[in-house]
Amino acid sequence: MRTRAAVAFQAGKPLEVTEVELDGPREGEVLVEIKATGICHTDEFTLSGADPEGLFPAILGHEGAGVVVEVGPGVKSVKPGDHVIPLYTPECRECDYCLNPKTNLCQSIRTTQGQGLMPDGTSRFRTLDGDPILHYMGCSTFSNYTVLPEIAVAKIREDAPFDKVCYIGCGVTTGVGAVVNTAKAEPGCRAVVFGLGGIGLNVIQGLRMIGADQIVGVDLNPSKKAMAERFGMTDFVNPSEVEGDLVPYLVNLTKGGADYSFDCTGNVKVMRTALECAHKGWGESIIIGVAPAGAEISTRPFQLVTGRTWKGTAFGGARGRTDVPKIVEWYMQGKIEIDPLITHTLSLDEINKGFDLMHSGESIRSVVLY
Amino acid sequence: MRTRAAVAFQAGKPLEVTEVELDGPREGEVLVEIKATGICHTDEFTLSGADPEGLFPAILGHEGAGVVVEVGPGVKSVKPGDHVIPLYTPECRECDYCLNPKTNLCQSIRTTQGQGLMPDGTSRFRTLDGDPILHYMGCSTFSNYTVLPEIAVAKIREDAPFDKVCYIGCGVTTGVGAVVNTAKAEPGCRAVVFGLGGIGLNVIQGLRMIGADQIVGVDLNPSKKAMAERFGMTDFVNPSEVEGDLVPYLVNLTKGGADYSFDCTGNVKVMRTALECAHKGWGESIIIGVAPAGAEISTRPFQLVTGRTWKGTAFGGARGRTDVPKIVEWYMQGKIEIDPLITHTLSLDEINKGFDLMHSGESIRSVVLY
Ligand SMILES: NC(=O)c1ccc[n+]([C@@H]2O[C@H](COP(=O)([O-])OP(=O)(O)OC[C@H]3O[C@@H](n4cnc5c(N)ncnc54)[C@H](O)[C@@H]3O)[C@@H](O)[C@H]2O)c1
Ligand SMILES: NC(=O)c1ccc[n+]([C@@H]2O[C@H](COP(=O)([O-])OP(=O)(O)OC[C@H]3O[C@@H](n4cnc5c(N)ncnc54)[C@H](O)[C@@H]3O)[C@@H](O)[C@H]2O)c1
Repeated sequence: MRTRAAVAFQAGKPLEVTEVELDGPREGEVLVEIKATGICHTDEFTLSGADPEGLFPAILGHEGAGVVVEVGPGVKSVKPGDHVIPLYTPECRECDYCLNPKTNLCQSIRTTQGQGLMPDGTSRFRTLDGDPILHYMGCSTFSNYTVLPEIAVAKIREDAPFDKVCYIGCGVTTGVGAVVNTAKAEPGCRAVVFGLGGIGLNVIQGLRMIGADQIVGVDLNPSKKAMAERFGMTDFVNPSEVEGDLVPYLVNLTKGGADYSFDCTGNVKVMRTALECAHKGWGESIIIGVAPAGAEISTRPFQLVTGRTWKGTAFGGARGRTDVPKIVEWYMQGKIEIDPLITHTLSLDEINKGFDLMHSGESIRSVVLY
Repeated sequence: MRTRAAVAFQAGKPLEVTEVELDGPREGEVLVEIKATGICHTDEFTLSGADPEGLFPAILGHEGAGVVVEVGPGVKSVKPGDHVIPLYTPECRECDYCLNPKTNLCQSIRTTQGQGLMPDGTSRFRTLDGDPILHYMGCSTFSNYTVLPEIAVAKIREDAPFDKVCYIGCGVTTGVGAVVNTAKAEPGCRAVVFGLGGIGLNVIQGLRMIGADQIVGVDLNPSKKAMAERFGMTDFVNPSEVEGDLVPYLVNLTKGGADYSFDCTGNVKVMRTALECAHKGWGESIIIGVAPAGAEISTRPFQLVTGRTWKGTAFGGARGRTDVPKIVEWYMQGKIEIDPLITHTLSLDEINKGFDLMHSGESIRSVVLY
């Protein structure tokens, strides 16, 4: 079949919106009509050329929602008409990782996914001239129709609005999941969140949902304060307005240190501050931000010997097929908010504008509606 | 009263064995006759002058066992005749730390203990000339008689031999506790232990006790192999005999990485290797070793984002009054061994020889018998 898609032909160049050829789903695969997709920093990271593992030409996009149109042989868990969210972290429920309750990093299709291919080692996308185009993060939601492995779609309730819940495909789950799955933060805790962008705001509302007592937000950009307060932030700290070292300031503000701290900036210096402002004895610091290639975190080991724990999270520790439908429920029940985070809605033809809005810092999330 | 003690009058000088004056126990304190004491690296660290927080003159020693001789007003949990192990990490059961199940770092007497004083801010030790001598780590087990806060003694069974269980006062609990309390390692796990000294051997036997499937020991000194095997090591790795990078070698040996890795060297480069050989998705690395002042650990944050956890442990995460008696039981029941680790037994007059044996690497543990 033919479908419209925004193709990344080359690093550093804008996406080209064009028609492409898409093969139907093979064994264990599903064809999904994408209804909406968010534009995330990771798409930008790859498109810019900064991602050493980026491959071209490819169809980017990994934060979508849509409807199953057709299923390949052997597919049992979804059927045409089901509403789904594509999963860049699949959940096969069979590999050593899926069977270990401590991780969400299903490895069953990792190698081919990293190569931009379906699990059988081929691509479903071609240019109209027949040249192959690669998949991206196993999702390629910047195409109106896309093929996904069955284990990489989460079935969700049918009354959930695509243009909002697409954001659960990455940002919402990453932030809320970091609180619920990775930190397993408890009611009454004190937390510090570094970086009040799309991820940080979702961490903040995750903390509000689980009943945190204090939610400190830290950002260099004071314009981030209002939205963060709306999402549950109790204290705002602008590091450029703090005299002296930020660590003792935050330890004092949280009456001894954060039970949980979260880096949502990707800055390795911030990651260190986040660890060191965690409470002696039990504070946990969770890295969500993705650092530039080669950058390293460091601290004195005494910080850990005296009881702090340093962790990270990918996709908010969520097992996609199990946890993503729950987060959709939380949104529909009003336990978490998404609507104010979708600051811009675009057509596919306007997709490059979404990247511009991200660069200028004007958007929290831009969503493309097909 | 007068008691014999080995006094550290000055950094970098040998201890002087002499008589000192000791005041009786005040409110909430107990007088203990020390029957045996181990000599630990931490004593050496302080005596050498390398410890920036070291204070002199002081009576060192923090790994002892003895008998309660007299109790001050208000003491309820022990009575004269009780056998006890002094605790450099006390357990008041009342402070925010004791009431938080995630930590063992009771803070109730931290400030005075760090100053070499009893909780009321004074010392019980004096020279015969009346000059004050400081306590050390709240224990000062290099004195035949010593005064301790009630919350800093663990009551143990009376048939436990002092010359063996004194080692539970630090080394045994640190190593076994790191496995049981900090890692909470499960039967069937694979582990890598870096450094096969007194601490590493106790980590190894902790792993054996809880039923680990694979226990890899890593040491530059091949003479450490035999004893480590006796304690449960299943694979020995000498990094100087591994071609190329140690991390992939260990990941391969453990079939994907260690479920738990432990640094028992104090070397920050080893700490990084220990983290990076932990299994993607769920591996935890625990720092036990104490690094030189100012040394820093570092890694790429990607190591944490892909599911590794970096932790540390002090006193093996043990709550002394609760957990130390249990470890004494494990020893008496034969679940852990101590006897082969006590390689040298000395009189108090020979105590400086114990430090020499440590420097030359001849001893695992030297114990002074009063
Ligand atoms: N681990 C995962 O699974 C995962 C998933 C998605 C995104 N991410 C990462 O999360 C990070 C945040 O993403 P986002 O979409 O929220 O980005 P964003 O750009 O919208 O927000 C980042 C915020 O951090 C603030 N900031 C930057 N430097 C700072 C500093 N030194 N101190 C305080 N604040 C500072 C900025 O002002 C901004 O508000 C990115 O690194 C992204 O790649 C990780
Ligand atoms: N966290 C705590 O509560 C606590 C308590 C007691 C001791 N410690 C610390 O634990 C550490 C170990 O103590 P110990 O008594 O076992 O010391 P030790 O000197 O007896 O043993 C250290 C071992 O590490 C080996 N080693 C050194 N460098 C190495 C390297 N690069 N690679 C592999 N092996 C190497 C040595 O050969 C030796 O066998 C020390 O740093 C000590 O200060 C911590």
